[in-house]
Amino acid sequence: MNEYKGYLIDLDGTMYLGKDPIDGAREFVDALSEKGIPYLFVTNNSSATQERVSNKLNQFGIKSSPKNVVTTSLATAKYIREKNPDAKCNVIGEEGILQALKEEGLTVSDDEDCDFVVVGIDRQVTYEKFAKACLNVRNGAVFISTNSDVSIPTERGMLPGNGSLTSVVSVSTGVDPIFIGKPESIIMEEALDMIQLSKEETLMVGDNYLTDIKAGINAGIDTLMVFTGVTPFERLEGLKVKPTYYVHNLKEWIERI
Amino acid sequence: MNEYKGYLIDLDGTMYLGKDPIDGAREFVDALSEKGIPYLFVTNNSSATQERVSNKLNQFGIKSSPKNVVTTSLATAKYIREKNPDAKCNVIGEEGILQALKEEGLTVSDDEDCDFVVVGIDRQVTYEKFAKACLNVRNGAVFISTNSDVSIPTERGMLPGNGSLTSVVSVSTGVDPIFIGKPESIIMEEALDMIQLSKEETLMVGDNYLTDIKAGINAGIDTLMVFTGVTPFERLEGLKVKPTYYVHNLKEWIERI
Repeated sequence: MNEYKGYLIDLDGTMYLGKDPIDGAREFVDALSEKGIPYLFVTNNSSATQERVSNKLNQFGIKSSPKNVVTTSLATAKYIREKNPDAKCNVIGEEGILQALKEEGLTVSDDEDCDFVVVGIDRQVTYEKFAKACLNVRNGAVFISTNSDVSIPTERGMLPGNGSLTSVVSVSTGVDPIFIGKPESIIMEEALDMIQLSKEETLMVGDNYLTDIKAGINAGIDTLMVFTGVTPFERLEGLKVKPTYYVHNLKEWIERI
Repeated sequence: MNEYKGYLIDLDGTMYLGKDPIDGAREFVDALSEKGIPYLFVTNNSSATQERVSNKLNQFGIKSSPKNVVTTSLATAKYIREKNPDAKCNVIGEEGILQALKEEGLTVSDDEDCDFVVVGIDRQVTYEKFAKACLNVRNGAVFISTNSDVSIPTERGMLPGNGSLTSVVSVSTGVDPIFIGKPESIIMEEALDMIQLSKEETLMVGDNYLTDIKAGINAGIDTLMVFTGVTPFERLEGLKVKPTYYVHNLKEWIERI
């Protein structure tokens, strides 16, 4: 059993469920904090800023500052800056992605000769935004999507997620995007870079096998699965590649921190 | 060589190219008209009404009345009415599809318990329209899409077509739509029903192998291909299933009418 020097932690289904806290989440984070173990919350949400995510955690009594939060927007912006610090980006997306790109010094533009097309969830999306994105991709822009989630659970039911909005551009142009969020490795690499630890020193914690646990597996990071969210315990047996560890409540893990 | 009793004719690339008439198209339709051979124009355009399409043809001197036009909207509305004359339809789409559904006596609704979801090209599409469509499909509505064209040629370049907008709903819900337009057989069956001829008595004329000619092949209708639009003559040799006939200019066919 490793003693991990840092933790990457999922939010929805792991720390809270929509508007309700998850039992044991606060105590788990308190234990990390008391032992001085660094942690980052890693979310596929591209619409929220680090501040907003951190405020939500604080409302549940979970210790977090904006710097503890890695959104797909932040990972996307950092990824693009590393490729081209002067990049001009055509964007479909909300506040989170727009702010993250600007904070990394990148230009957001409606021109048709952009270097990157970035697609994140956008509840104000228009045909014209899709049109501009398609024209830019056809003109050679690198096509990035913050995350591939096809739907979002809401009080109204399952609504279209960013993966489905992204498909307008990929289906129309025939070009597949680079996805940044879980289960892809890119967001994990950016998170490791921020927490300044190696993959061997870090544990990825999450409830969703197909995003959180797969992201850990894909990036070569050990995983801790919890059954408080999307994936039920009954799924575990049928999985070919299992999580490194699992618990039913994060309190069970505290003695191992 | 058959003598065909009726003709189904594509528009863009066959009768005109965007805003320009195609040489021989007017003379070809005149010859049909003079010999009293019935013809219908069959288009995957779901946004235009029969009147608007007919007016455009008249501007090029091509003989047409609204009744000579079969749009995917009309075929969609007729298809739904045959399945359920009292159907309540949740619609993403423009004037053409809205008018066609209403003219067939169907109800257009934003409710979440609709019988059908209908997706056609919609340049005023919103996230809320996608959301309503996804909720209805998840609630069991039959999912129909007017046509699968992934892009539309415009003066600005290739813009998103209905096939790419439709993918938001299919990717998010995991449900594949029933496509009505070419190359599917449904629009051809509706056209045969309107022209009141059998498939053996009818010839399908078009420029696009993947939509027009495939539609004829899929529906068991003989095809006449013309190289004035999308598919170049050079493609012919490599095609496994070839069109029944081909000409370089529709004037060449007049003596065979």
